[in-house]
Amino acid sequence: MVKFAVLGCGRIGRMHALNLARHPRAELAYVYDVVGDAAAATADATGARRAGAIDDILAAAEVEAVLIASSTDTHLDLLVRAVEAGKAVLCEKPIDLDLAKVDASWERIRDRDATVMVGFNRRFDPSFKALRERIQAGEVGPLEQVVITSRDPGPPPVAYIKASGGLFRDMTIHDFDMARYLMGDMAAVHATGANLVDPAIEEAGDIDAAMVTLVAKSGALCQISNSRRCAYGYDQRVEAFGAKGMLQAGNQRPTTLSFWGAAATEAKDPVLNFFVERYTPAYNAEIDHFVDCVEQGTAPLAGYRDGREALRLADAALESMRTGATVRLD
Amino acid sequence: MVKFAVLGCGRIGRMHALNLARHPRAELAYVYDVVGDAAAATADATGARRAGAIDDILAAAEVEAVLIASSTDTHLDLLVRAVEAGKAVLCEKPIDLDLAKVDASWERIRDRDATVMVGFNRRFDPSFKALRERIQAGEVGPLEQVVITSRDPGPPPVAYIKASGGLFRDMTIHDFDMARYLMGDMAAVHATGANLVDPAIEEAGDIDAAMVTLVAKSGALCQISNSRRCAYGYDQRVEAFGAKGMLQAGNQRPTTLSFWGAAATEAKDPVLNFFVERYTPAYNAEIDHFVDCVEQGTAPLAGYRDGREALRLADAALESMRTGATVRLD
Amino acid sequence: MVKFAVLGCGRIGRMHALNLARHPRAELAYVYDVVGDAAAATADATGARRAGAIDDILAAAEVEAVLIASSTDTHLDLLVRAVEAGKAVLCEKPIDLDLAKVDASWERIRDRDATVMVGFNRRFDPSFKALRERIQAGEVGPLEQVVITSRDPGPPPVAYIKASGGLFRDMTIHDFDMARYLMGDMAAVHATGANLVDPAIEEAGDIDAAMVTLVAKSGALCQISNSRRCAYGYDQRVEAFGAKGMLQAGNQRPTTLSFWGAAATEAKDPVLNFFVERYTPAYNAEIDHFVDCVEQGTAPLAGYRDGREALRLADAALESMRTGATVRLD
Amino acid sequence: MVKFAVLGCGRIGRMHALNLARHPRAELAYVYDVVGDAAAATADATGARRAGAIDDILAAAEVEAVLIASSTDTHLDLLVRAVEAGKAVLCEKPIDLDLAKVDASWERIRDRDATVMVGFNRRFDPSFKALRERIQAGEVGPLEQVVITSRDPGPPPVAYIKASGGLFRDMTIHDFDMARYLMGDMAAVHATGANLVDPAIEEAGDIDAAMVTLVAKSGALCQISNSRRCAYGYDQRVEAFGAKGMLQAGNQRPTTLSFWGAAATEAKDPVLNFFVERYTPAYNAEIDHFVDCVEQGTAPLAGYRDGREALRLADAALESMRTGATVRLD
Repeated sequence: MVKFAVLGCGRIGRMHALNLARHPRAELAYVYDVVGDAAAATADATGARRAGAIDDILAAAEVEAVLIASSTDTHLDLLVRAVEAGKAVLCEKPIDLDLAKVDASWERIRDRDATVMVGFNRRFDPSFKALRERIQAGEVGPLEQVVITSRDPGPPPVAYIKASGGLFRDMTIHDFDMARYLMGDMAAVHATGANLVDPAIEEAGDIDAAMVTLVAKSGALCQISNSRRCAYGYDQRVEAFGAKGMLQAGNQRPTTLSFWGAAATEAKDPVLNFFVERYTPAYNAEIDHFVDCVEQGTAPLAGYRDGREALRLADAALESMRTGATVRLD
Repeated sequence: MVKFAVLGCGRIGRMHALNLARHPRAELAYVYDVVGDAAAATADATGARRAGAIDDILAAAEVEAVLIASSTDTHLDLLVRAVEAGKAVLCEKPIDLDLAKVDASWERIRDRDATVMVGFNRRFDPSFKALRERIQAGEVGPLEQVVITSRDPGPPPVAYIKASGGLFRDMTIHDFDMARYLMGDMAAVHATGANLVDPAIEEAGDIDAAMVTLVAKSGALCQISNSRRCAYGYDQRVEAFGAKGMLQAGNQRPTTLSFWGAAATEAKDPVLNFFVERYTPAYNAEIDHFVDCVEQGTAPLAGYRDGREALRLADAALESMRTGATVRLD
Repeated sequence: MVKFAVLGCGRIGRMHALNLARHPRAELAYVYDVVGDAAAATADATGARRAGAIDDILAAAEVEAVLIASSTDTHLDLLVRAVEAGKAVLCEKPIDLDLAKVDASWERIRDRDATVMVGFNRRFDPSFKALRERIQAGEVGPLEQVVITSRDPGPPPVAYIKASGGLFRDMTIHDFDMARYLMGDMAAVHATGANLVDPAIEEAGDIDAAMVTLVAKSGALCQISNSRRCAYGYDQRVEAFGAKGMLQAGNQRPTTLSFWGAAATEAKDPVLNFFVERYTPAYNAEIDHFVDCVEQGTAPLAGYRDGREALRLADAALESMRTGATVRLD
Repeated sequence: MVKFAVLGCGRIGRMHALNLARHPRAELAYVYDVVGDAAAATADATGARRAGAIDDILAAAEVEAVLIASSTDTHLDLLVRAVEAGKAVLCEKPIDLDLAKVDASWERIRDRDATVMVGFNRRFDPSFKALRERIQAGEVGPLEQVVITSRDPGPPPVAYIKASGGLFRDMTIHDFDMARYLMGDMAAVHATGANLVDPAIEEAGDIDAAMVTLVAKSGALCQISNSRRCAYGYDQRVEAFGAKGMLQAGNQRPTTLSFWGAAATEAKDPVLNFFVERYTPAYNAEIDHFVDCVEQGTAPLAGYRDGREALRLADAALESMRTGATVRLD
């Protein structure tokens, strides 16, 4: 039994809290949110205690693990404090929006050898996980090309966008991590962005569509296409190609129904709408994996460095979009 | 909170017990099995108490609902006793193998107006449920033809088959219920059986493959194909056809991966292997629905009469197979 | 170069005439139709000569092969006369509607050892042909079950239906032949018919939907479902099942496009509308095969006996539908 | 009837010659190849006359149209001479490898108002054609993103590659044209190339895999992925995405069969192997369209400017690959 506290009870924090409350090897001891009502509602729904302050949680010796799902600007500070308080940490992505701060913080905590995991939930999706395993088993031969499709069903509020660090650090960061998950470290990035969805996003200084090319250190190539809008749901697909063929991971639907009529045939349901629906099994598997790591002291599948590298790729993409040039990474 | 007891802790009973233990509106108070070790294991896994005798459960006033998952020959007796003890009952299919007994028992309990539900789990499968709703919404027009494909991954042990009442009462009974779920009551049955899978099944006096034609009272036609063996998993599909088109419900797989190689393209995983894997969401929704019925006093979607009618169709199929003639139902 | 005459210039005859005119190893010398204008139009379109009378064609020594596409009631007489005139014959299905006449005619021509082929075009469809080859190569193991789906896009005129011999002899006859093509000879037939599409068909004494069960001499089972109406086009599918798995042959569409939108995803075109569109490659391959048989003196893949057996199954289905009983074939 | 001469009787020239010989509104008068045997073989197969010299063809008043399928280095010279001789021209892609020469030649012939068409066969593929029509009909709303997948089954001989102008001008040129066909003119190009398939290609100074990003003048984005190797056949797919959804054009297979077995389900045939197999209907429709243009004096769907623009994109891609920078087009 691993005792948890959840910091941040917004949409994602609450979902994690509910998952922890049902988990056979976890116990949710505390929840906290700066908005007291949010913390109270999650405490009610899960039977956890509502902590009065973060320090109470960090001081509670019985709390072994902290799940950080608060606003992005608080992630890194909470992560460091939790590690320094001797806790294992599962932190939502991104760790932070400032690579220099990410690196400086690492210097502070690296010697503690703590269990620090970053919430790259897609690594735990059964299809993407199987995709990676089958690539590694050599099913398509050495990877040559990867094509990642990633579209959100609709844009978030402009207020969210303003604090998000921009599309590359907020949304593409998952795809950068997926590229690294499948292909390893990257040698070069080129990115193109566009404003196609909502003028308010442009006014807020961000883009709402992008196409990115990555070159891996292995020599393999990767393309990512992003949009903040997708009429048919949350479009999350990957194709991985090598000399022996291609593996495709497709979208997911609530039923297996298809309709055959006068105007169309094999018409299926729209795909699952967004991350909570689509990645439910992934979020559960993510918690499972983190509990394993805490119990057994093993390294998480998505560690601090993975969070750092994805941010570095996002920064490079931003630079490439601004200059038009391919950005080489050491 | 509905307090439950589970009678029978074999594969299905244990699965139900675990589902009840996790259910937010149910509480699993007791489990019972004639095999003490089975009961003890399920009690351990769920935190329920192991009852020393069925009568203890029936006498326990706080137990509102009984889930019967014991061997088929005990179903009907337990069902009647539980109803007479004032419990709501969720009974695994088939209620019994003897239609006359089923009808006689009904006479004993009909006036009690108890909540009695039969475990036709497929009615709660999200895809089949949506299929029915879309048929009823008129999406294909009045139903004209239904084709049901139902193949088990492999045959059960011969000992099971000997006690099963035969393929029609044990396996096709689900498909008879699916036909009634989608099309209403039946007017005629024709069945053909064959021994294609395992000679031991023939020696045990049963068939292992069948093709059945049903005529509904509405005039619509239905075909069922069954096999006790299926190389690619648990083959569970339905096509429903009317003037405006067709709705198909397909098989389900663990991932969305497909492989494209030199020998084949779009090759997907084998389908989910058997009822526990395939119908996990259905079993959960079934319990949900039953708890709703108990709490609100509403009629279950699969009642005693549905259990009786499916058995009647199985008996008619057996007669048709023996005589070669179409059996008309009043 | 094989010199042909085409008898009958209706929709099918004209299509065959055009195919022959373009065929590199065939030459279309004559066309004939009792309706002079039909013959003239086809002669114009193909460059063939319009014969004044059938006897002129039968007397023309240079004509090696006759393609019979006239009305069904003339098929058998023309077939016998053509064989007796020393011609090779490719006759549209059905040979005739009267099994006794079919057998009597056979007695007249059997010793002539002529090339007589029946136009079971589906045997030459690339997908059904590959299906059969892969079955015979053992890909699914010995055949255990076959499911044939066969729906026309819409019913023919009632006048056509009145002369057609009924759904089993006119439409299902193709599916009976497909069953024999894949499974060999049949041991038993059960059929159920219904009137679901157009009351005028019932008034004309015919059915417009059917479900048929066949038992092959091998012990394998087969189901056929038919309808005279299908909203999404010409529904022509086959599933063949054995211990090692299943082979499916699906429908065909004019493009590979699929649409993903807010209401549906992977929505494809309606399937090709009817036999001329769907079986274009099959009709070409059929002529190819017939020319091969004439040139090399080899036996056609669909011979007189195949035409006879399909008719026998249709007759048995009709009897079964009338009596409700399974009809055993010797 | 349009009278044709075919210049160049290699693989593509011979295919065109055979298509012309069967075309109802075309007549193939002459064929020519510098290799006499190739010309003779095509003349034999089509019934055309073998010209002794190109000048004989250009001087033949009855020849209205010339199809140029000779080696790339001869295309532009032959095109200009044919136009100056008053012929309509259908020229295989690319027009030439030197944009300056392409522009200079245009100055020579632009005032003649001749029918000049470039053989971008994919514009005539039924699926891509329908894709464009449905985009233009507004089915997905204004285009926002296009993803083009284009992989050859295997690399051509190194000798071919050395004369090809490189992957962008030889292979991607089709994809550049597809992008323009669907999205209109382009504003910017970024390209990345790699050597992943065969070291001999690198030694020959070319790449064998590429990923390209295009920005259209409309603001829409496009990605192209290319490989000279594809285990499962000729991979030719397009996705077009807008606010209302996505249209996908998929690969094509010889049959509709799928296999369901213990290791995989829905396994389909490899896709059609290469351009002759995949684009057979497109090549036929291309000739049809060109004959229409010649007969009616209308502008071809793929004109000289389209050939020029695709080459310009290829040149820009090459520059981008060398510099790493995005190349802006005026």
